[in-house]
Amino acid sequence: MKAEIIAVGSELLTPDRLDTNSLYLTRRLNQLGIAVSRKAVVGDERESLREAYREALGRAELVLSTGGLGPTLDDLTRDAVSDLLRRKLALNEGILRHIEARFRRLGRSMPENNKRQALVLEGAEVLENSVGTAPGLWIETEGHILVLLPGPPAELQAIFTQHVEPRLARLSGGLRLFAREMRVAGLPESEVDQRAAPIYSVYTDVETTILAAPGEIQIHLRSWSGDATATEEKLQELVERLTLALGESVFTTGGESMEQAVARELTRHKATIAAAESCTGGLLAERLTRVPGSSAYFRGGVVCYSNDLKTAWADVPPELIESQGAVSAAVAQALAAGIRRHTGATIGVGITGIAGPAGGTPEKPVGLVHIVLADGVNGSERTAQLSGDRDRIRWQASQLALDMVRRYLLHLPPGGVNRQAGGQD
Amino acid sequence: MKAEIIAVGSELLTPDRLDTNSLYLTRRLNQLGIAVSRKAVVGDERESLREAYREALGRAELVLSTGGLGPTLDDLTRDAVSDLLRRKLALNEGILRHIEARFRRLGRSMPENNKRQALVLEGAEVLENSVGTAPGLWIETEGHILVLLPGPPAELQAIFTQHVEPRLARLSGGLRLFAREMRVAGLPESEVDQRAAPIYSVYTDVETTILAAPGEIQIHLRSWSGDATATEEKLQELVERLTLALGESVFTTGGESMEQAVARELTRHKATIAAAESCTGGLLAERLTRVPGSSAYFRGGVVCYSNDLKTAWADVPPELIESQGAVSAAVAQALAAGIRRHTGATIGVGITGIAGPAGGTPEKPVGLVHIVLADGVNGSERTAQLSGDRDRIRWQASQLALDMVRRYLLHLPPGGVNRQAGGQD
Repeated sequence: MKAEIIAVGSELLTPDRLDTNSLYLTRRLNQLGIAVSRKAVVGDERESLREAYREALGRAELVLSTGGLGPTLDDLTRDAVSDLLRRKLALNEGILRHIEARFRRLGRSMPENNKRQALVLEGAEVLENSVGTAPGLWIETEGHILVLLPGPPAELQAIFTQHVEPRLARLSGGLRLFAREMRVAGLPESEVDQRAAPIYSVYTDVETTILAAPGEIQIHLRSWSGDATATEEKLQELVERLTLALGESVFTTGGESMEQAVARELTRHKATIAAAESCTGGLLAERLTRVPGSSAYFRGGVVCYSNDLKTAWADVPPELIESQGAVSAAVAQALAAGIRRHTGATIGVGITGIAGPAGGTPEKPVGLVHIVLADGVNGSERTAQLSGDRDRIRWQASQLALDMVRRYLLHLPPGGVNRQAGGQD
Repeated sequence: MKAEIIAVGSELLTPDRLDTNSLYLTRRLNQLGIAVSRKAVVGDERESLREAYREALGRAELVLSTGGLGPTLDDLTRDAVSDLLRRKLALNEGILRHIEARFRRLGRSMPENNKRQALVLEGAEVLENSVGTAPGLWIETEGHILVLLPGPPAELQAIFTQHVEPRLARLSGGLRLFAREMRVAGLPESEVDQRAAPIYSVYTDVETTILAAPGEIQIHLRSWSGDATATEEKLQELVERLTLALGESVFTTGGESMEQAVARELTRHKATIAAAESCTGGLLAERLTRVPGSSAYFRGGVVCYSNDLKTAWADVPPELIESQGAVSAAVAQALAAGIRRHTGATIGVGITGIAGPAGGTPEKPVGLVHIVLADGVNGSERTAQLSGDRDRIRWQASQLALDMVRRYLLHLPPGGVNRQAGGQD
């Protein structure tokens, strides 16, 4: 079964509001094996609404609409559906008493306006609203189902769980959604697709979507099925084949963030980490500590914008800054080694670069970053030229740094971390 | 002129993704006097896409579409429009060279897939993409305009400002949107509305929306008009009356972020700042350094999760941690004073608290934070019990800290910052 969702409300067509109800509905529908094939946002205009319902009912077996059931004159959902299906609206005494009682309980008398909420379409089933005034309506027409729900999330969700879900469960065929999400860092989208397409295209009953997000590529795998064991096995096989093709660039097969993947590896190796940041301004520390329980592996971090603090907090020799410049591989190296020594962490990370928009030169343009991982023995080093605005450069630099830590730990034999902090860098 | 927006991508029909590009487009279109009359989200399916474009072009003079221009086989926007308008796609050598050059600059060779991004519809104008590979397309058909834009926000925004906006400005009819955004911290939404409603409700031709965001309340004022001077004056008058009613809780009347407001005040007072953070894990430093040019006032920061680093980096006496606990007003005070001394900043901020989900006790529950601002003389201090998950607690703590800095600077006479760093705290 396929569904469309129509969000009603002129405020959803301004720059400040998004229809978020559809995320809730999509999640619950997917769990019932129902895919959402289209979403629309329509303003409070009787004719536009009527057309939107007409089109959606022409395509989908199930149409859910949210909003426009309020008491005010610009709430036109009921009228638009009445126009479209040529069915009358009639005052339902039961609902009217329910609304009046609700107002009485709040110590108020019902404004005349609210009477509109007791209007019910001929032949519609009333879906009682236990947390507000406007009931939902369940309408069947020529083999299609139209469900009208109020806009306030609490009311919509209460009506959906109490009345819509049980009805849909009876109708849907026992299908469920099974999903996996892989994420890849260090490969461009086109390369990921080139390696992955020959594999996933064979799995015709798995829907594969490849998405580019800043600093990573996501591979979403989704399959509707009535057979949990077979589907889980098939998805697992596909994930394994894709992982083989993409190698260690895959940082998660379970939808984790990069910082969660790094947290996992740090924990597995019982390693600790510390950071000395310049251009990322604390973003690396902030991401590392987003993960609950991060105090187990995160020792500490410094954000040293000024040269004297680079020296004070990470022992970067002033001569080195003088000769190489604050943005240089040598200073990143000194930051990494210094913060490692200062904190006693097993891994120290140093980042220096130019986040922009100002501060670039022909030799050292905006977007240039140097990242060094120091482990007291070898470590690793990376220079990159990143593009985009300040936010994006900072984000990508933090992503690169985290990915360097992840790959470093991946190549380490378990227990292979150099525990002798303060050693040679 | 009315516009419709179509967001393309099957991932936008899952429970995890929202089309947020349409908010950006709506804002910019509104500024040109163009209202958005409908939005749709359509999956990567050639036939559904074709129908969506057909319907939208049947209703609106302007249709903007985002996404589906990537290099992979499930990027079908170009093909769907080609089907609908019966116009051929042809390889554009100029674009191909642009894409190849982009890959060369990144030190890679162009994967074969990316050739698809150089396909241009017969009769379409190419809108150059200065920050990515897929160009936009401007298509005119029977008096209607269809603009195809790539999905990644940075690319879409660059193409829109550089190529779409100037073209639309020439077409639109003289009405413009005038807007103001005020933001308030430290008052609950209901209180803001209670104070603001008697004022804004008098201005019937200004659309007022009050929105709650984490750590702040936003007041959006919008008015469409052909008379710039009169409208700007009216909005200015309304902003001034609202500011009078809400007092210093208003931290911006120009839609700035809290960190921008703090940056402005720091610059005005020629003050510098440093932070010693525990539970916020670097978020305060990260927010302070988001602002371009922050090196002028941000001296540096430390993230000291462990007790020994609190002592090493901010001179917090071990006995104090022992007797009061790491999460205490006294330790926050010591962090603030210590980081100020270490960095020579005029203002030091110390934050300690319990971000959760673990680590809470009946005496010190999750969400408890202590924030201290040290200026070498008086400073200020705040203890708060925040609610929500780890992310939300950390965000609100950083917002509170920034707001304390802002209010402190607001009360300072110009030049009143204690310049004698390292003085008594």
